[in-house]
Amino acid sequence: MNLLLFQPGELDAGAALTVADGRARHLLDVLHVGPGSEVRVGAVDGGIGTASVIAVDAGRVTLRCRLGDPPPRPRVDLLLALPRPKVLRRLWAQLAALGVGRVMLTNAERVERNYFDTHLLTPAVYEPLLLEGLQQARDTWMPRVTVHRQFRRLVEDELDALCPAAIRLVAEPGEAPRVSRALAHAPPEARVLLAVGPEGGWNAFELSQLEAHRFTRVGMQARTLRSDTACVALLTLVHDALAAG
Amino acid sequence: MNLLLFQPGELDAGAALTVADGRARHLLDVLHVGPGSEVRVGAVDGGIGTASVIAVDAGRVTLRCRLGDPPPRPRVDLLLALPRPKVLRRLWAQLAALGVGRVMLTNAERVERNYFDTHLLTPAVYEPLLLEGLQQARDTWMPRVTVHRQFRRLVEDELDALCPAAIRLVAEPGEAPRVSRALAHAPPEARVLLAVGPEGGWNAFELSQLEAHRFTRVGMQARTLRSDTACVALLTLVHDALAAG
Repeated sequence: MNLLLFQPGELDAGAALTVADGRARHLLDVLHVGPGSEVRVGAVDGGIGTASVIAVDAGRVTLRCRLGDPPPRPRVDLLLALPRPKVLRRLWAQLAALGVGRVMLTNAERVERNYFDTHLLTPAVYEPLLLEGLQQARDTWMPRVTVHRQFRRLVEDELDALCPAAIRLVAEPGEAPRVSRALAHAPPEARVLLAVGPEGGWNAFELSQLEAHRFTRVGMQARTLRSDTACVALLTLVHDALAAG
Repeated sequence: MNLLLFQPGELDAGAALTVADGRARHLLDVLHVGPGSEVRVGAVDGGIGTASVIAVDAGRVTLRCRLGDPPPRPRVDLLLALPRPKVLRRLWAQLAALGVGRVMLTNAERVERNYFDTHLLTPAVYEPLLLEGLQQARDTWMPRVTVHRQFRRLVEDELDALCPAAIRLVAEPGEAPRVSRALAHAPPEARVLLAVGPEGGWNAFELSQLEAHRFTRVGMQARTLRSDTACVALLTLVHDALAAG
């Protein structure tokens, strides 16, 4: 844990935070803090700063927090065909660590219907995994997660409201301009909406729907990657291209 | 499985291959092949082509193979501080899928000694995971894996023989030239040797040793990533930069 995250409501009027859960155990058993220790802290969706431990008592740790500015908000949103549960489980923390503003999980022909039954789509299950990723990467911006069982309704009716004014890219294996070229002339504060298909790919209808709604194709190498590897790779390329702009 | 891999010795003089293991079950239960079906096949470290199923009998599948050229050999080698076993397990298939010529796992101050006791460093355990990644990505080049308990000996004495004539990069969080800039003037067939440290980073001595042996620093974002995410991200950036050259 490179950053101790707390919910804004956990802070009292005097900027004191008391933790008694897994965070307290991490502070005591891994970081071996005591009164006077300094740790890096952040408020979910808020500022980052440092905190001094002011009391340790029976597994409870109380810290006085001094928060500065929030980190920059991630400029990438992800539209992802729902991967199989085993892959999704691996992916949550990595998505938060790489930085995404919004994750829209959607259906597609090559997504199996029973994938939607997984408990990994329950906020109580995925939020701790997202927090783990944020704490790893020292970020505070909790990705917004929505689940869309109807691909067509998402693309036609919902996407403009969820992700206005973004450059839209859809990744396909094979020949297509590289991400860095597609984003070479992106304005300085541009946001990107990246669509990543199922492991078998989008079908022709889905791809034409995406292209009809302003998505342009980008390619990687010729290699076919597992969904989690592909997401990490593509988010890396988008972030890298935006940082270069 | 996007490619059925076999060891060159499995092919008989008439280019016939008989499988009766997990590959046969995949052919029969997932791909539902029968006589006349065509599947994509490859020889480990060799060519890629197609095969026709010529017989199915009691869980055994026999195919006639027609192999073409091997895919291009991956132009990236990885020097990786040994990650904790849970992370290493996730990483094997992804490394093979992304494409690495050689993986050198090494010690560092911030690598715990007991990480070297894991069965994940046994070829019988990691080779099937590497094959899984190759089959996913349709590659045949099996990464060469070596384990180096002495970082200093590796860098001073062994690296020049293991990875001659490569551009050497060491990834560090924070301010440093981006990968694409570091490789902007790489010659067309250049190989890259990428060093990725432990989650706590290389210590100052290790970093100075690497820099004394022709490694130049490259940066990513300010974010601290888990070893597996960092490896996928960095290998993606190196492959992308080499493909652009």
